[in-house]
This record gives sequence, structure tokens and C-alpha cells, in this order.
Amino acid sequence: MTMLEKFSPLFTDLYELTMAEAYFAHHFTDPAVFSLFIRNYPRERSYFVAAGLEDVLAGLEGFRFSADEIEYLRSTGLFSKGFLLYLEEMRFTGSVRGIPEGTVFFKDEPILEVCAPLIQAQILETFLLNTIGFQTMIATKAARCVHAAGGRALIDFSARRTQGRDAAIKVARSSFITGFSATSNLLAGKLYGIPVSGTMAHSYVTSFDSEIQAFEAYAQTYPDRSVFLIDTYDTLQGAENAAKVALEMKKKGRRLIGVRLDSGDMIAFSKQVRSILDRSGLQDVKVFASSGFDEYKIADAIKQGACIDAFGVGTKLGVSADAPYLDIVYKMVRFRDRDIQKRSTDKINLAGEKQVFRKTKEGGRLAGDTIGLKHEILAGTTALLETVMKDGRRVGPRPSLDAIRKRFARDFAGLDESYKTGAQVYPVALSDPLRKVQGADLRDIL
Amino acid sequence: MTMLEKFSPLFTDLYELTMAEAYFAHHFTDPAVFSLFIRNYPRERSYFVAAGLEDVLAGLEGFRFSADEIEYLRSTGLFSKGFLLYLEEMRFTGSVRGIPEGTVFFKDEPILEVCAPLIQAQILETFLLNTIGFQTMIATKAARCVHAAGGRALIDFSARRTQGRDAAIKVARSSFITGFSATSNLLAGKLYGIPVSGTMAHSYVTSFDSEIQAFEAYAQTYPDRSVFLIDTYDTLQGAENAAKVALEMKKKGRRLIGVRLDSGDMIAFSKQVRSILDRSGLQDVKVFASSGFDEYKIADAIKQGACIDAFGVGTKLGVSADAPYLDIVYKMVRFRDRDIQKRSTDKINLAGEKQVFRKTKEGGRLAGDTIGLKHEILAGTTALLETVMKDGRRVGPRPSLDAIRKRFARDFAGLDESYKTGAQVYPVALSDPLRKVQGADLRDIL
Repeated sequence: MTMLEKFSPLFTDLYELTMAEAYFAHHFTDPAVFSLFIRNYPRERSYFVAAGLEDVLAGLEGFRFSADEIEYLRSTGLFSKGFLLYLEEMRFTGSVRGIPEGTVFFKDEPILEVCAPLIQAQILETFLLNTIGFQTMIATKAARCVHAAGGRALIDFSARRTQGRDAAIKVARSSFITGFSATSNLLAGKLYGIPVSGTMAHSYVTSFDSEIQAFEAYAQTYPDRSVFLIDTYDTLQGAENAAKVALEMKKKGRRLIGVRLDSGDMIAFSKQVRSILDRSGLQDVKVFASSGFDEYKIADAIKQGACIDAFGVGTKLGVSADAPYLDIVYKMVRFRDRDIQKRSTDKINLAGEKQVFRKTKEGGRLAGDTIGLKHEILAGTTALLETVMKDGRRVGPRPSLDAIRKRFARDFAGLDESYKTGAQVYPVALSDPLRKVQGADLRDIL
Repeated sequence: MTMLEKFSPLFTDLYELTMAEAYFAHHFTDPAVFSLFIRNYPRERSYFVAAGLEDVLAGLEGFRFSADEIEYLRSTGLFSKGFLLYLEEMRFTGSVRGIPEGTVFFKDEPILEVCAPLIQAQILETFLLNTIGFQTMIATKAARCVHAAGGRALIDFSARRTQGRDAAIKVARSSFITGFSATSNLLAGKLYGIPVSGTMAHSYVTSFDSEIQAFEAYAQTYPDRSVFLIDTYDTLQGAENAAKVALEMKKKGRRLIGVRLDSGDMIAFSKQVRSILDRSGLQDVKVFASSGFDEYKIADAIKQGACIDAFGVGTKLGVSADAPYLDIVYKMVRFRDRDIQKRSTDKINLAGEKQVFRKTKEGGRLAGDTIGLKHEILAGTTALLETVMKDGRRVGPRPSLDAIRKRFARDFAGLDESYKTGAQVYPVALSDPLRKVQGADLRDIL
């Protein structure tokens, strides 16, 4: 169990609880609806991939302040006895509607709507934004890498440079959803059943007296699973050494899986290494490459004819380096019987409890979304938000990671190339009933 | 206890364990020395602030594969029975030398050196890089914000958009080290005893029938701790409303702490709001500002004469948005009796077990560092790396967060302005004995 699953309700901003104390004092305990959505695309993005819902539901199921958490709150001197008692007994009793993980969606569309007594719904803000925001950001980045790789295998190598260990585990899961083949992260492999993969490090090679001895030792231990790192001393000599050991392996009926490049001009090296291997009759030995790859570098390598069969994608995926956060927000959209809209100088949101309706054309092609009110019926569309929790309990079975992966593959295959690249903006409209409940001028939104 | 403290040794890359299996098969169990350092400054950076060591030591003390982790490894089919037994009984028995948290240091300087049996030292790589890398990156970003704020108060508001929950907790701690006053993150407040702070959200204001009612309700609950968010509907009207409620509070002998701006042109608004407050005789009501602040935006606001007394710093601190990862590496530098240097096309490292020697001038001003071999003695310098673990046990007491904070304050005060801004490069030299053990051309390093 990872920390994201073992959720402490104390993971929240102080103001959520001071506001809640004021709500409590004024008996504001009626149900409210909050909506989670992304206000803008980060650079280069034109779609998002939903992720994080499973962790949200696990957190809500176990929602409960422990005795020592209540004691800590008491020690701050900020909370009344009555309110602390209320918190101590609080469980999540609300309902949650969400876009399933793996779904492709767009800005302004609600990913999640929570309907719960105001105080419950309010204090979840920090947790929900953090969980959905991070995993959705990474799944989106990973989808972009998958798109750039055009069918070549991708492996998550990010664990060492993610922003914390929990992040690493979630990166492995979020990238696997979008079609990555494997992760190097063993803990993620164990937790989620994701295939694990890896080669060797430079320190391994340097701990032997020679590179060729290092390769031979590895081949002895892993006669059918070896990938040799060939750039420790001299990449082309490394390729020759790898070829030599691969031929020895071949004689024994074994096969070298591949060689890995981790530095230098990967495009030029990959071609030279390929030809060294081919010259030795080792056409079946693959070339892996790692070091600084992301969707941009992958696309560039492919365009320049690099002979790379699989990419290890690390740091830049793991922190979504070119866009390391989302403009994701959680806004009250309904309280008591009033649709609510915040309106400040430069930030606005859509009032009302909502639904996203999607039209698809033949062959599953995504043809346009409409954001409407929850109870509308739009013929010939699919409603994206599903009820996943009711009265604090999960509704329906927990989808397998494989099912989530398939959902993404289906959606992504249905998304036209021009929407993937951002050449065209995917059409998202607002329904008339939704427009009618808005108090403000909507020109700035859609 | 956060996840970073409850370290699972399975948080590692697969290749660490497959290499280890090969080492085991070849009886490579002699001690090795690995060095952790940062190869380059990210954009705009010219120094680093050490953080993460405490989590490293806590992780190493509890280092132990659980039965079900061993079972998972067995299930992969990659490991021999003998090796799994070896792992099952493995504890960390090595020694660790590190630069204490809160210390200012520079690129190429070893932050941490681990001396342990090769397999132990190797499989820690992922954990060490992740832990020290992330926390050092955030402490460095936070120090830059503190520098830009020139004495104004800073509060960590990042929890909702960090890359996971563990990250949020570490951001609160790392920013507090560098002089932040407080965090909004209650869980971090509880775990580390960091002061907590917060105001109110737009949803709070919109849940009342009017803004003034929202302010009055809050003031009633928190007569001595209120900060009103004034930009929900109209910032200047919000300031007038806040002033009105503040004057009512004043009559009852209470004081409004401040108002908060969260959108719009903060520089212009802050001046107008200041004058609205002053006009009502509310010179003691402070102006807080949040939304998108980082060192650049803070410096700009101050330069343009913004009337802001305290900044809430969120997302861009929490993910180190302009530089979301460090080029941090962990390299074997000595094995058996051999100093080791990896040398590939574009990556190089310094062989040998090392120490960083620092000269200080009168008044504690930092005057230059020398990277040398561990056993050198350089008169008039202080050695930065301290032995913090020996035979797998901590050496010396655990420093308090307050002591770490003081260490940073002292070091940072001693760092000349020109080194802080990067106008000048802080002098870091290599000692002659260190140079002698290098096999390669060092021109590219320093």
C-alpha cells in the first residue's frame, strides 16, 4: 500500500479547516457540489488523459481523523471542542462522479464532481487536486511520448529523479496506462503488477577489470535477459565488445536481447552500432537508448532515422519537465439550491452540477464534446462522468489496470491526429441549459 | 511517519538487483565507495542548499526486505535462491559521510559518500538520488524566493499542486529550512512542528449570501486570526468590505490581521488596497498576496513598489517549476583498492573518496571551496562532509529543524550577493592529490 492510498485527512491546507470551523459555527452543513477541472492547457498540450481516480476513491473510503491527528488540531488552539468532536466522527458520506481513468478529455470539462455536506466536500480540496492533478499530468505526458514513439517500445526509467518516491510509483502506473511496456521501478512492479525491465549501470561495468569481462559475467547470470550498456568507455568499441560476447552466446544457443546507449550523439551512434551488430549477423539484437528522452527528443530521433528499437524514458517524463504542473482547480458550483459562480478579475468557473456528453463517429472517432447540466439527455452521445461513489461507498467494480489501459488505447486511437498535435482544437461546446444557469459573461471561457 | 521515512528497499530500479545478482554470482562483495553529486546548475542557479539527509539516514536504519518483497522478487524468475536469501538477511552495514542539511554547496561537490559492501551501496542508488535530489532542489528554489523577498514573510501554499503528497510534506520542510515562516500544510505541521498558516478560499466567500457576511462570520469565529480574501467578486469593493468589518472588529478591541489578493494585477491592486485600508486608519492590517508567485514574480513586485507584506508561494515553489529536476548522479568512485572513473563521451566523474574543504573570511563570508581526497588536511578550512553513519548506525545526535534552519541562515548570510545572483561563479578548486588520482582529462569538469 502506498502513501497515496493510506490517506490522512490532515493532508489538507489549514484554511480548509478554519473555514470549516466557521461553517460549523454557522450551521452550514448542507450538501454542496464541487467540480474539479483544468482551466488551461500547458504548453504544447491539446488533450488530457484522466488518472488518479482509483487513489481518490481508496482515500475517501478510509477517510477518518485519527486520535493523534485530532490531538494535533487541538494543540493549534484554532478549533472549538464541538468542531473537533464533529471532525473525529466524520466519515465521507457523499457521492462522487468521475471520468474513468484512461479517458481522453479536454480543458474546462469536469473530471470529478463531489456532492457532500459542505464541510466534507471542502476539506477534500487539497487531496483531490493533488491526486488527480499529478497523475493526469503524467498520463498526459506519457501519452505524448507514446504518440511520438510511433509503436516503438517505451520503458519508464524515472524513479531516481521523480519528486519523491510516491511520485515514482504513480509515474510507473500512469505511464503504463498509456501504453508504456514496462517500468524499472520494482516497488511499482510489485504494487501494480506492471512488467519490470532494466539493463545495467556504468558502475557495474567499471567494477570489472574490463568491459568485456563485465558483459561476460552478466551473460553468464542472465543468458536470456541481457542488455549490455556499451557507452562506459567508448561506445563503438563497446558495440564491438557486445557483438563479440553476443556471438559467444549464440554458439551456446543463447541470444543477447540488446545493447543500450546512454550518452553522446544517439542518432549517429545508433546507426553505427546497428551496422556493427548487423555486420556480425546480429540483426536480432535490439538497440535501446536512454538519457534525456521525452516526446520531443524521441520524435527528433525518429525523424533523423535513428536505429533505436526502444526508449528508456526517465526524468523528463517523471516530472513532466516542460510543464510540471496543471492549472487544476476545485470550485463550489452548487450550494443548497443555488448554482454558484465565483467571479474575480481573471478567474471564472461554470456554475451548476455538470456532465460531459461525447459524440463519436464510425470507427470510434471522437467527434466533439458538450458540457451540459447533469440531468440533461443528449441523444447519440455518451456521458463521460460515471457515479463511482454513493453515500461514501464505491459503486461498481474496481477496473483492472489492463481495462484502464484498453480504455485509453481505444480513446486515443479515436482521437484525430490534428487534435493530438494541437493543429486543430477539439470541439467542446456548452449546452444551452448550462449557459442559462451562468450569471457571468462566458466569452472568456470557451 | 511519512512514506519517505518508511523506506522499502524495493524502491529501486530492477537493474540494481540484476547487477547485484551478477555481483553475487562473481563474489563481488568487497566495499565500494559511491559519491552523490550534482553535475550542473539548472537555469539561473549558482548554488545549492543541502536537504534530504535525515530521510536518507532514517531509510538506511530501517533497511530490510520484507518477506512479501522477497516473495515478489522470487516471482519475477530473475533471481537465484542464494541471492534472495542474501537479500533477505541484508541490513545496511556501511558508513555514510554527508554535507549537513541547510549547508550551501556547489556543483561537483560530493553531497554524500557511501562506503559499503558493493551490493548494498549499489542498490541504494535510486533511493538516495530521489531523496537528496528532490529535497535539495526544493530547498534551493525556496532559498531563491527568500532572497528575492528581502525580509518579507513567505508561506508555503504548495500542497495542492505538488507531485504527490509526500512531495508536499517535503516541500514544507525544505522551504522552512531556508526561512519560510509557515506552511498551509497541516500534515507537515504535525510531522515537523512547522507553524501552520492560512486564510480562506473563494468557495468560502461564495457559500454566503454576501461577501460582507462571509467576512463577519469568519471574524466571529477567529476574532484575532482573520485574513480576508477580497478578490472573489471585485477586489476594491472587497477591500472596502474588509475595512468595514475591520473597523467593527476594532470597536470590540479586535484586530484584522490582513487581507489577501489572489488574482488580477497584484501590484496595482496592492497599492489601491493599501490606500483603502490606510484611509480607514487600518495601517496595521497587512496585505497578503498569492497566485503564481516565485522568486521572479516576487522580485518584480517589490521592484515595482507593490504594497505586499507577505507572499503565499505555491505551485512554482512546490515543483521547482522553472527547473523541476537536478542533474544529480551517484557514481562509484572506489572499489577494492582502485579509484574508479567512468568515462564516456559526454559524462565524467571524479575518482576517489573525497572531502570538501571550505575557507571562510572574517564575518563568516564564504571564500572558496576545494574538493580534495578524504584524508587530506587543508589548514584554515572546514571539512563539509561529516560522518553521519558508521557500521549502519547513526553517529551523533539528530539535528533539530531549528538547528538546520540556523545553519542555512548562517551560510546564506555568508554568501556574497554576486554568488547568489550568479553574477560571479563561486570558486571551487580541485586539490593536487585529487587531480593525481584522476585518469582522464579534467578540462571539462571545472
